[in-house]
Amino acid sequence: MAEGEAGVERLIELMAKLPGLGPRSARRAVLHLIKKRGVLLLPMAEAMAEVGRTIRECLNCGNLATADICPICAAEKRGNGQICVVEDVADLWAMERSQVFGGRYHVLGGTLSALDGLGPEELRIPQLLDRIETEEVTEVILALGATIDGQTTAHYIADALDERVSVTSLAQGVPVGGELDYLDDGTISAALRARRAL
Amino acid sequence: MAEGEAGVERLIELMAKLPGLGPRSARRAVLHLIKKRGVLLLPMAEAMAEVGRTIRECLNCGNLATADICPICAAEKRGNGQICVVEDVADLWAMERSQVFGGRYHVLGGTLSALDGLGPEELRIPQLLDRIETEEVTEVILALGATIDGQTTAHYIADALDERVSVTSLAQGVPVGGELDYLDDGTISAALRARRAL
Ligand SMILES: [Zn+2]
Ligand SMILES: [Zn+2]
Repeated sequence: MAEGEAGVERLIELMAKLPGLGPRSARRAVLHLIKKRGVLLLPMAEAMAEVGRTIRECLNCGNLATADICPICAAEKRGNGQICVVEDVADLWAMERSQVFGGRYHVLGGTLSALDGLGPEELRIPQLLDRIETEEVTEVILALGATIDGQTTAHYIADALDERVSVTSLAQGVPVGGELDYLDDGTISAALRARRAL
Repeated sequence: MAEGEAGVERLIELMAKLPGLGPRSARRAVLHLIKKRGVLLLPMAEAMAEVGRTIRECLNCGNLATADICPICAAEKRGNGQICVVEDVADLWAMERSQVFGGRYHVLGGTLSALDGLGPEELRIPQLLDRIETEEVTEVILALGATIDGQTTAHYIADALDERVSVTSLAQGVPVGGELDYLDDGTISAALRARRAL
């Protein structure tokens, strides 16, 4: 055991599993945490335990929530007839940061992918179709990445909705091959304003 | 609050303070943790709490320890008369991974730096001088980075030891301006074998 103490070694192993961290940066991060025991390590342990205890998926839209229904689904003023369909919660956050969308969301949890074995059932698409009826939806905005899987998913959803509502998609500003969560607020905002019928 | 739930937002803020993580990678890391609640989030919260509860500094050498004295200082066979002086625990780990050093360590906790206000007292140098007597030390190996501060610190320690013991330093293989923790095992091992009297 190069890292000496079993607890430290275990923590480094776990940290190295985070996206963007390898073994070396995990070691640096853990030493930094130990140096900042009172202001970083212990508060982080507590915050993780709390998130693990309280956070679940909104039963309606798939957003993170501490109750059955997330704050966005629960807010009456967000029920304006628009639903913005995103791939994951990071994309929902990116949309919220741009502050140009006043409706609700539907978090797919991925895109259709034969490779990953992800079909419509895995992606909360049946739940989206249900919401069209129950929430008096007038427009579904597809805010999916300009990737092949993203566009395949967009077309699948548009077909499934079968002209029951207006279906639009973010257009201008999303770079080809780009992922939504990488875009700046201005680009997202321009893409939303210039959305086109699909 | 773009990130919706207070606990999630707080965790992202804390994660963004880790070296190598910015706000975006912290958001990705937290979403990944929430997806892997059972196998990553909860075990990591537990590992952090345990490390925070049990890990402290070895009173003898400054290494991480769960008792007053670390396993290396406590191991009789490591008391071979050699002490390897390193800047921080990451460098001690790098030395241990190279598996070519059988003695004990002394972790300075930094290098002398007028800029950062780090003097000999802050760097455990008085404790090193004490150990020369009590541990029957015959050789002090200075394994400090080939930076200006590292070399200033090496010369300061060599002067302070005043020919009471043999003082050597890692030489061949440490690139100019390089930091120890970035080197591969072979380079460290070559540098140790080719150490020269200071
Ligand atoms: Zn919701
Ligand atoms: Zn020790």
